[in-house]
Amino acid sequence: MYLLPQRKKNYSKWYNELVAKADLAEISGVRGCMIVKSFGFSIWEKMQEVLDKMFKDTGHKNVYFPLFIPKSYLSKEISYADGFAKECAVVTHYRLKTSTRGNIIVDPLAKLEEELIIRPTSEPIVWESFRRWIQSYRDLPILLNQWANVVRWEMRTRLFLRTSEFLWQEGHTAHDSRNEAITETEKMLEVYTEFSEKLLAIPVIQGFKSSMERFSGAKQTYCIEAMMQDGKSLQVGTSHFLGQKFSKAFDVKFTDKFGEQNYVWATSWGCSTRLMGAMIMAHSDDHGLILPPKIAPIQLVIIPIFVNQIQLDAIEKVVLPIKRSLEKQGISVIYDNRERYSWGCKLNEYEVKGIPLRIIVGQKEIENREVEIFRRDTMVKNMLPQKGLVNSISELLEEIQKNMFQKALVRRNYLTTEIDSYEDFKEILDAKGGFLSAFWDGSIETEEKIKKETTASIRCIPFNRKQEKGLCIFSGRPSFQRVFFAKSY
Amino acid sequence: MYLLPQRKKNYSKWYNELVAKADLAEISGVRGCMIVKSFGFSIWEKMQEVLDKMFKDTGHKNVYFPLFIPKSYLSKEISYADGFAKECAVVTHYRLKTSTRGNIIVDPLAKLEEELIIRPTSEPIVWESFRRWIQSYRDLPILLNQWANVVRWEMRTRLFLRTSEFLWQEGHTAHDSRNEAITETEKMLEVYTEFSEKLLAIPVIQGFKSSMERFSGAKQTYCIEAMMQDGKSLQVGTSHFLGQKFSKAFDVKFTDKFGEQNYVWATSWGCSTRLMGAMIMAHSDDHGLILPPKIAPIQLVIIPIFVNQIQLDAIEKVVLPIKRSLEKQGISVIYDNRERYSWGCKLNEYEVKGIPLRIIVGQKEIENREVEIFRRDTMVKNMLPQKGLVNSISELLEEIQKNMFQKALVRRNYLTTEIDSYEDFKEILDAKGGFLSAFWDGSIETEEKIKKETTASIRCIPFNRKQEKGLCIFSGRPSFQRVFFAKSY
Repeated sequence: MYLLPQRKKNYSKWYNELVAKADLAEISGVRGCMIVKSFGFSIWEKMQEVLDKMFKDTGHKNVYFPLFIPKSYLSKEISYADGFAKECAVVTHYRLKTSTRGNIIVDPLAKLEEELIIRPTSEPIVWESFRRWIQSYRDLPILLNQWANVVRWEMRTRLFLRTSEFLWQEGHTAHDSRNEAITETEKMLEVYTEFSEKLLAIPVIQGFKSSMERFSGAKQTYCIEAMMQDGKSLQVGTSHFLGQKFSKAFDVKFTDKFGEQNYVWATSWGCSTRLMGAMIMAHSDDHGLILPPKIAPIQLVIIPIFVNQIQLDAIEKVVLPIKRSLEKQGISVIYDNRERYSWGCKLNEYEVKGIPLRIIVGQKEIENREVEIFRRDTMVKNMLPQKGLVNSISELLEEIQKNMFQKALVRRNYLTTEIDSYEDFKEILDAKGGFLSAFWDGSIETEEKIKKETTASIRCIPFNRKQEKGLCIFSGRPSFQRVFFAKSY
Repeated sequence: MYLLPQRKKNYSKWYNELVAKADLAEISGVRGCMIVKSFGFSIWEKMQEVLDKMFKDTGHKNVYFPLFIPKSYLSKEISYADGFAKECAVVTHYRLKTSTRGNIIVDPLAKLEEELIIRPTSEPIVWESFRRWIQSYRDLPILLNQWANVVRWEMRTRLFLRTSEFLWQEGHTAHDSRNEAITETEKMLEVYTEFSEKLLAIPVIQGFKSSMERFSGAKQTYCIEAMMQDGKSLQVGTSHFLGQKFSKAFDVKFTDKFGEQNYVWATSWGCSTRLMGAMIMAHSDDHGLILPPKIAPIQLVIIPIFVNQIQLDAIEKVVLPIKRSLEKQGISVIYDNRERYSWGCKLNEYEVKGIPLRIIVGQKEIENREVEIFRRDTMVKNMLPQKGLVNSISELLEEIQKNMFQKALVRRNYLTTEIDSYEDFKEILDAKGGFLSAFWDGSIETEEKIKKETTASIRCIPFNRKQEKGLCIFSGRPSFQRVFFAKSY
């Protein structure tokens, strides 16, 4: 029995219903904004916890900058302003009042002298501050991160993937040399890659963005791209080498060791609640979510099956010590003895929520000194002896983590095709989608035309590409690089 | 040598400079908004960590609701709307554009049909959602919390104490009975009290707010108030019994066990980055911040004194194992061997940042197998044998925590005066401020007049008051209660 629509029949409906049924998020009454519900938020908290540690281990410190950006700050870096102007929420007033008719209205007398933009990212307010903080090479590097909400007024929204408000982290760093800034950009891409592959069990392609897809205000955008089950690509994280664009726009100079004045070099990098979307779409099936053990807020659920208190007592005498032993090993367990819900109902709940392992213990299991264990990733049930259970479970969790990555990798490889003609390109794109590795002449013109005709765009120019010469599949002009095209989220 | 102005001479300047010099926060270029800097943010993170665990241990789950509240939601609960209308940041447009002159302007065509308010609190959006989530008593209780930024357009701002945007947590709960909601309100006040007294080392007075000072939309506001060094009171946390005000405004009913339809009972409770202000003003001295060990992100700093690498090597051979042993005991330590800074400079830095303990190790200490230890709260230096140091330090940290609470309690008691005439009231208020425990006739009129004449308001109607009869110090009318008046932040 499936609770959800099948992916094959209606992928989009499947996604939406999964997000709802697994208690991850829902659409709010506020246009384009989501409510992240408690189970969804507990996964996001786990992601935050792991990423936050990775950022701190690489020398970054958390701070908090204001939500608002004065319009004049936004205007300082032209390409940035151009990139975000079309999707800015603008605060124009600071007071409401009661009208003569008794309605609450905006007070026309409380108009701001300068409009405030709700941050779409924080570069302008960060660099306005860096100007005050940086005088000498001794003040560098500055390595900051902030966890925050940002707003981009999106017309078509989708839970986790594209919402007007979303939660994210944004790193902002300042350096005394180009090289150090590039090293930082690369280091943070590695952090995101490790997080994606080791924690989320999602294999990614590392590369550069084409100039068309680049972050507004960056010299170079490094990205990692992941392949979803429906053959569309999703950007998991980006790390931007900003060069001296912001330091020049905000006039941030430092005196170097030789007494010379130079503009500061910069990076920024971020990932967001889109990671939730990536995780859902990379792993889930028609039964619901499948959580990688390393990011699951609950790794194991224990459900007792009983008809009376005597039976329950006997079960608890066995399973509660097991629970404690598991917790000592750092495994997160819940024991679900809620009487309000039938056990069938519970099984459904944990299946759709994707809890990696489920243990059922009833009379028979007590007698046989075993438990029934269910693996969410393979949907396979087994009996396991109670003796040595903690070890068996640790191993199983490791195995699930590996299996999920492997499965996603096999799918990604299946969905990656080398293409040498535009006809093949269009055919494969329609037939199965995925990454299409094809020669490109390097021009924005070609990229735009392909995107217009097929909706596929260049997702990334991979780092680890073979040195090859070929002809652009669209223009026929000589090309020195295969790039990854795909439809995308 | 003092780095800061003296409290006695200019308390306000002392506070502002301390906040800046200890790297806690600074005023941003955005009106009324602060930047929480890295050291300040690390303290806030520690507070969050502890509080978050306390909320989870009492059964609450974290979620995230949208930043925006449609104007029509705000209007539904009249007293709430009245309370917040005057300080709302209003989003009216969703796009900027480039004008014909090349300036970035608000696009007049991108006007929102309905204005969005940036949340001053989240009750309206929460209760709009609760209407969808609650049908039956089986859906109750709902026990949620969110960590978020909120905006209240304040005209006079002060770092941490009053800023237009601030960070906070807000709990929102829904219950099937009045009693359960009141129990929840009281439980959360206890959580805040424990946090304040045990972690922040700040003694508090528990009580109710008078109707004038009550949260807009609450039936009853429970609060904890703390006394600052300058004789002003600061509200540390509040917990509101909302009754059925929001459930009626948003039409949230549930079917009870007997099949009857009832309005849901509610609470909300919150504390904010004001806690940072409370902690600073409750404990710090003219040398800078003094951090209670339990909330200090760094509890101990070790500084080596050396003139060459050989000396440094000898010191590290001793102190690095000590550092590891301390960390094993859960004590957070930094070892500061930065060569860029003189040790005098380092001493100043940690003094102004209020690190509870500081250890200095030089040649002499190595020879004598001891360390020089400095307690920030008492400013006392001592020599301690290296042997048994981990235990000595654990004990010292406990002692500092206790001493800080005791000191604050003694000061609070000194600054609490029983007053029986309005003349004494005004005299003591001018002379030393503090809490003035006085009879009040219970009328808003009297409260307003006293506030107008003296700027002191009723900070709380304490729970644990003696049963006494007296005469209102202002009106002379009979009174059955002493209440706590004070000037406040």
